[in-house]
Amino acid sequence: MVVPEIADRITLRSARPEIVRESIRRGDWTTNTVGLSAGYTQTNLVILPREYAYDFPLFCQRNPGPCPLVDVTEVGSPVPLKAARSADLRVDLPAYRVYEHGELVEEPASIVHHWRDDLVAFLLGCSYTFEYALDQANVGLRHLNEGRNVSMFRTNQRCASAGRLHGPLVVSMRPIRSDRVARAVEVTSRYPLAHGAPVWIGDPDGLGIPSITEPDWGETLTPEPGEVPVFWACGVTPQAVAMEAKPPLMITHSPGHMFITDIPISML
Amino acid sequence: MVVPEIADRITLRSARPEIVRESIRRGDWTTNTVGLSAGYTQTNLVILPREYAYDFPLFCQRNPGPCPLVDVTEVGSPVPLKAARSADLRVDLPAYRVYEHGELVEEPASIVHHWRDDLVAFLLGCSYTFEYALDQANVGLRHLNEGRNVSMFRTNQRCASAGRLHGPLVVSMRPIRSDRVARAVEVTSRYPLAHGAPVWIGDPDGLGIPSITEPDWGETLTPEPGEVPVFWACGVTPQAVAMEAKPPLMITHSPGHMFITDIPISML
Repeated sequence: MVVPEIADRITLRSARPEIVRESIRRGDWTTNTVGLSAGYTQTNLVILPREYAYDFPLFCQRNPGPCPLVDVTEVGSPVPLKAARSADLRVDLPAYRVYEHGELVEEPASIVHHWRDDLVAFLLGCSYTFEYALDQANVGLRHLNEGRNVSMFRTNQRCASAGRLHGPLVVSMRPIRSDRVARAVEVTSRYPLAHGAPVWIGDPDGLGIPSITEPDWGETLTPEPGEVPVFWACGVTPQAVAMEAKPPLMITHSPGHMFITDIPISML
Repeated sequence: MVVPEIADRITLRSARPEIVRESIRRGDWTTNTVGLSAGYTQTNLVILPREYAYDFPLFCQRNPGPCPLVDVTEVGSPVPLKAARSADLRVDLPAYRVYEHGELVEEPASIVHHWRDDLVAFLLGCSYTFEYALDQANVGLRHLNEGRNVSMFRTNQRCASAGRLHGPLVVSMRPIRSDRVARAVEVTSRYPLAHGAPVWIGDPDGLGIPSITEPDWGETLTPEPGEVPVFWACGVTPQAVAMEAKPPLMITHSPGHMFITDIPISML
């Protein structure tokens, strides 16, 4: 495996997933994974103690929009056998978030020191997956070329609860040109395992979002004249669930800093 | 054939196309055809002298969004053999518009007195077709239940010209709830012969529409909070072409007063 000496976004955009993961593992790549390994599926990460290993899949089953389940590890194993056999979920993401009893307590670059034999990791589909397809379909995504993260918002919509897990729906927002919104819907509806079609198109008021320029996560992307804000269900939803349901421990990716799988988007 | 004594919208909504055409032919039904013969394809009508019989199909081929060609009659014949063998296009629509050299000169209930041996009739798919499918998919359409016509607007977008025919794109507008816009796109994209997916979603400014409450044709439908204006290419486009390209004679349906074919929507 030849890992590039200098990890830059242009190089890593066309690199195979194992190369990008190795760059991340070495600490050469520490920022968001927007556009990296173009054509391969990226995922959200949720790690919970075994005692939640039933509640969480149930939550995913009841909320397939925000939580499309792509892979689950064996108890105690950080290796996602279906998504990437050579990966180690403790070190292959650029940044993690550690929640204890609903509080964000740490944002480390590795979670080796947090790993325990009773942990289970869940990989959830991510909208970065369809951004590549949107780009191919000539639906302009300004943030993609600028290497910036999307805007993410907590909404007034409730997810269906499962056992001890409950919380609000989180959405990602991309401004899309009015003449390309229909194409954006057509393209993304083909990817139910990457959140599928938008859940909301238009005025953010109805989602209980007070200001489109003040996202709860990610970066500000202000719609320009002739653009509409388009909202997709978002894999940051489990983090909002952690904050509200307060399990003793939940470890996730840091928003925008995803896990890059070996699964080609065309196979998803 | 049992034609109802009193032609009302509820009765004709579930009536077969030949029954509705007979009611129209008798003069019992004189208003718009919104929702009639639910489940059957409705079409726009364009009649031109034979000398335009090459330019117009070419215009349709180059502008399949506003002008999806469903049927063409033989020269001199008012019978659309593919769409409805028992129909007579001179009397089976509730209202017509007659344009001479770009001027609207008459809006009759029959065009028997205008018919000539050198005329050709073209049937173009219509968005009323997919309104039934939208309704089935629980995408709310307020105007449908109220029996009202949609709003139609001339835009600043140009159609591709063909021979002597040129003009602007005309669109129809329906306000759709923000959480159902994606579904509206998914449903209508399945009907390319009924204008397909929306061409514009959001702020009407970008289409050069000065006021959403002042349609050029049809009725005013004001978007309410939580709704987005959604625009589809519209079969009234040829009428805008008539006004601009000024052929000596063009006869069309009156906006909203469509031809009802025998073609089930599922076969379109």
